[in-house]
Amino acid sequence: MLRIKVVGTGIHVPERVETAEQLASRIGRSAEWIRTRTGVGERRIADRPLEEMGASAARQALGDGPPPDVIVNVSTTPIQLIPDTSVFIQHALGYDGIPSFSIHATCLSFLVGLHTVGSLVHSGGYNRALLVSTETGTPFRDLAEAESAALLGDGAAAAVIERTPEGEESALLDFRMRTWPTGRDMAEFRGGGIRAQPWLPQHDPNDFLFRMKGTRIYRLAKGRLAELLFPMIAEAGLTPDSVDWVVPHQMSGPGVEAFVEAGFRRARLINLVNRFGNCIAASLPMALHEMAHRPECRRGDTIVLAGTGAGVSVACALLRW
Amino acid sequence: MLRIKVVGTGIHVPERVETAEQLASRIGRSAEWIRTRTGVGERRIADRPLEEMGASAARQALGDGPPPDVIVNVSTTPIQLIPDTSVFIQHALGYDGIPSFSIHATCLSFLVGLHTVGSLVHSGGYNRALLVSTETGTPFRDLAEAESAALLGDGAAAAVIERTPEGEESALLDFRMRTWPTGRDMAEFRGGGIRAQPWLPQHDPNDFLFRMKGTRIYRLAKGRLAELLFPMIAEAGLTPDSVDWVVPHQMSGPGVEAFVEAGFRRARLINLVNRFGNCIAASLPMALHEMAHRPECRRGDTIVLAGTGAGVSVACALLRW
Repeated sequence: MLRIKVVGTGIHVPERVETAEQLASRIGRSAEWIRTRTGVGERRIADRPLEEMGASAARQALGDGPPPDVIVNVSTTPIQLIPDTSVFIQHALGYDGIPSFSIHATCLSFLVGLHTVGSLVHSGGYNRALLVSTETGTPFRDLAEAESAALLGDGAAAAVIERTPEGEESALLDFRMRTWPTGRDMAEFRGGGIRAQPWLPQHDPNDFLFRMKGTRIYRLAKGRLAELLFPMIAEAGLTPDSVDWVVPHQMSGPGVEAFVEAGFRRARLINLVNRFGNCIAASLPMALHEMAHRPECRRGDTIVLAGTGAGVSVACALLRW
Repeated sequence: MLRIKVVGTGIHVPERVETAEQLASRIGRSAEWIRTRTGVGERRIADRPLEEMGASAARQALGDGPPPDVIVNVSTTPIQLIPDTSVFIQHALGYDGIPSFSIHATCLSFLVGLHTVGSLVHSGGYNRALLVSTETGTPFRDLAEAESAALLGDGAAAAVIERTPEGEESALLDFRMRTWPTGRDMAEFRGGGIRAQPWLPQHDPNDFLFRMKGTRIYRLAKGRLAELLFPMIAEAGLTPDSVDWVVPHQMSGPGVEAFVEAGFRRARLINLVNRFGNCIAASLPMALHEMAHRPECRRGDTIVLAGTGAGVSVACALLRW
């Protein structure tokens, strides 16, 4: 158990909207197909640099409080390879001198960051940590792969973590994760590294697009995640219908809806897929921000955070708000 | 203080050697200039995939012990953007199901990883963590920028961290870091992300090469690092000549030599620049492996780890072996 408390959250979604109707003809499907298959009614399209989106969400999460003493970028989309994106987010926030680095676990980056940076805060390495996820999947959509192209959207979210004050019970109660490299080709962006170097004549332009075998990844991940999630809540003395909130990675409409089929309460399941699509690592903290602003949300509530990512990885956590 | 112990280290250097003499004509300088300016007599050139280099170092670090319960890639060079490199390292090791992710802080990735993953181990999140740095800077050298092209080399290194057993005193005693985005253009690779998309007509091929303003970064980083390092060792009751080992990032020959000028003992300063150049994030754990195999190295020794990275970031740590 890590004695940490999420003291602030923030979100930034671009103003520009792309509806299922607007996208349909570009991917050779109907708007109805998009809505049914992916659950995405509309998504946002980035209209500002990635670091400014992240900084906007971060400012909201920081509120009137002091600056953070560490800034951790927990995103998949990089601005450039060197320096890492955390440096640009710090600059966009107008800070200088704050230790900054990045954690990359694809769609699970925020959840892995919450555990990892939570450990740093719990053990006294830092006192006020800023986590920022900022993603623009739009330019990397493969319009020939209708399903993933219809899922991806742009957005940013942030959270500020501090040690839990004496007498309060906020905590990261549990965290579980597994990674299965047998699924490493199920969700890929092959560019951006040593494998697909754009100046080499044999490079394939498709290497610079996101490709996903959605059905295969869903089948693998659903079972694997259940194997982690149900023992975790049972060991905490909880049942699906006694968990106060479920805040999943917004992988797809059916992917989020699967939590209802598994017995969690729809009224306490945060589902932003229809409005924003899958914003990669930003999806989960965007949903956490939404939960934090629901009138029913109270300190002490139990929250299941869960998701899947390329790798294939699955992870879940139990947070006491 | 984190009660962690480095229980194993490993290294992999490619067999293929490129000497200063072989590189000289390609960068329009003499071998003598390379040796004097950068301290690099020769470097290694990768002849195997990045993940196999990392797996080779990891196997040595793991030794006869059990598999790790988390694998963290702490490197700058990615294989591809999605999934992150940790997944490919796990696959090359023949494992499946071990949680894996990446930490990116450019040349400081291993040091940030030691602190971050050390916190996870200290606080009980994991019991046996594998950190792997694997780097191939060679394809990203800008031969028109003689200094950085003469510095970069390829290599990999790994370390395994466990909680310190009762009765032993191994620990990460201190860690300090600062990041100054005012220096974000001093060391850059502008490709690999949203900024320089290779399929756009306006992209610049130079964006896919590493560029460094060596003199500016050295001047900024040297003073900033001193401001962190000397208070850290003084607060621990140490002086430069009483520290048992100095294990720096191998930024350059003069960069490593600066620790002697600052009063640390040359005989206890690990300098691999002449043999291997600057292997980005792998440099520091390569030097740690070298230290661990010196006959004078004993459990209980005090070790200064220190370095600079793109950002500009500076960091230092005090480790009791």
